[in-house]
Amino acid sequence: MAPAKAGAGRLAIIAGSGLLPLYVAEAARRSGEDPFILRLKDEADQQWRDFDNAVVGVGDVAGLSALFRRHGIGRVVLSGGVKRRPGFREIHVNLKALMKLPLALKTLLAGGDDAVLKMVISLIEGQGCHVIGVQDIAPDLLASTGPLGTVSPNDDDLRDIAKGAEAAEALGRLDVGQGAVTVGGRIVALEGVEGTDAMLARVARLRDEGRISQRRKGVLVKLCKPQQDLRADLPSIGRSTVENAKRAGLAGVAVEAGRALVIEREATIAAANEAGLFVIGIDRGLPGGVM
Amino acid sequence: MAPAKAGAGRLAIIAGSGLLPLYVAEAARRSGEDPFILRLKDEADQQWRDFDNAVVGVGDVAGLSALFRRHGIGRVVLSGGVKRRPGFREIHVNLKALMKLPLALKTLLAGGDDAVLKMVISLIEGQGCHVIGVQDIAPDLLASTGPLGTVSPNDDDLRDIAKGAEAAEALGRLDVGQGAVTVGGRIVALEGVEGTDAMLARVARLRDEGRISQRRKGVLVKLCKPQQDLRADLPSIGRSTVENAKRAGLAGVAVEAGRALVIEREATIAAANEAGLFVIGIDRGLPGGVM
Repeated sequence: MAPAKAGAGRLAIIAGSGLLPLYVAEAARRSGEDPFILRLKDEADQQWRDFDNAVVGVGDVAGLSALFRRHGIGRVVLSGGVKRRPGFREIHVNLKALMKLPLALKTLLAGGDDAVLKMVISLIEGQGCHVIGVQDIAPDLLASTGPLGTVSPNDDDLRDIAKGAEAAEALGRLDVGQGAVTVGGRIVALEGVEGTDAMLARVARLRDEGRISQRRKGVLVKLCKPQQDLRADLPSIGRSTVENAKRAGLAGVAVEAGRALVIEREATIAAANEAGLFVIGIDRGLPGGVM
Repeated sequence: MAPAKAGAGRLAIIAGSGLLPLYVAEAARRSGEDPFILRLKDEADQQWRDFDNAVVGVGDVAGLSALFRRHGIGRVVLSGGVKRRPGFREIHVNLKALMKLPLALKTLLAGGDDAVLKMVISLIEGQGCHVIGVQDIAPDLLASTGPLGTVSPNDDDLRDIAKGAEAAEALGRLDVGQGAVTVGGRIVALEGVEGTDAMLARVARLRDEGRISQRRKGVLVKLCKPQQDLRADLPSIGRSTVENAKRAGLAGVAVEAGRALVIEREATIAAANEAGLFVIGIDRGLPGGVM
């Protein structure tokens, strides 16, 4: 096997939780790469026996650096969820990374996800590797503009999408989260550290308790943070997002076209069609978009 | 008994859930009023046998209007929580209110809390009553500037307060909620329809799961929404807020001086002192404030 981009060094995928890293690895293989998987300890939860792989702790910068050298890694993709932040005692660094450490530590402990990911990217690039985006390896995972399935939003849904996008953007600017739920024009939930699925479960509960209109459906909107590095943590949705949106009584899900990932695209869209939910890619501030 | 403000008609307190309406009623009585309590059905949860009172449904504008006339009500205070929004079938209106109904209905079903409360105020004033604020009846419930108990925020806490205030302000501008939790400079939770106590329970859970730093404490900040009518829904805290903040591992609670209510002030401050938490009133944009 002679990967097209061999000159740039072997591709590593730093794998957090969920299905996304597996999809990225398979897409990389299809494009002629031989990806090496760095499984994040306590986070990576897929079966990786078909790929060369090794475990690395979340704060173990020194271990990461050694693995980069041993396996000739030149390019790195960050992919999947990372729920925990490393504790003080789990952070191991080498001399090179140590130079940047005071800032890095502060960011790890105090920054939003976006600030942390920017720091991680700079630490990795400090080791001589290039960090590239999931979309550079698997562009077919990106949401396109318009409805992805057979269901389209109606006028009420479009208004909810516009209102939710406004909230998600304000949220992103604060580096808090990427998602918001709007029901009948009212913003009912904003995503913090808990994540999209936990937020949708909360909406389902509030709906059961009669604290959200039973008559209005509503939408989930996920947007990129305005200042976010597109090589890390693009908003993503998958089949579970659609199922949880259904449980929360929503009419559908809107994500940013070209800047959000749809995992398990076929299964996700089939689940949405079957549930009668729309999944739509929206443009932000671009002429000719849905909004 | 000859109330000082008899010329303006009898005072009614529309009582939602929680202790606040009881405190307001007692304060009103101390100042020479003879308040009539309108208990909101399925919301009011205190013992009201010491006060003249009647039940009214949340959407029952016609019933409210009849009670105003029967008891000579001229001034109204809105007080306590209202968790549910009325369903379509629960909204009963008379002819006068009907004129405003298309807008009112839309607001009830789609607006944020602030929009709904402004609408409710305008419906009540349309019946010839004046709506006044809790602070006009019980000014001693308002938070003052500076620490209310024996504990003061340290420099880390002050930074968390500043960051949380920024988030709470953005949240308020969207008419979503009034509260935010910041831990070690990172905004971890924003309050939506679920309310402050449910948000604090979420933070406690995220902390147990290791998704929020165990080393950093953090703060709860509650602010008025920038555009909010001060006669309704001032942010409030009480003993349960302090207890839940303690469970969430926070260092303390900050509220807006002069624009937030501290219910059960003595018990709340005693609980905070005992738990080692600060409770502080902060100024927003005023010179000489804590921030």
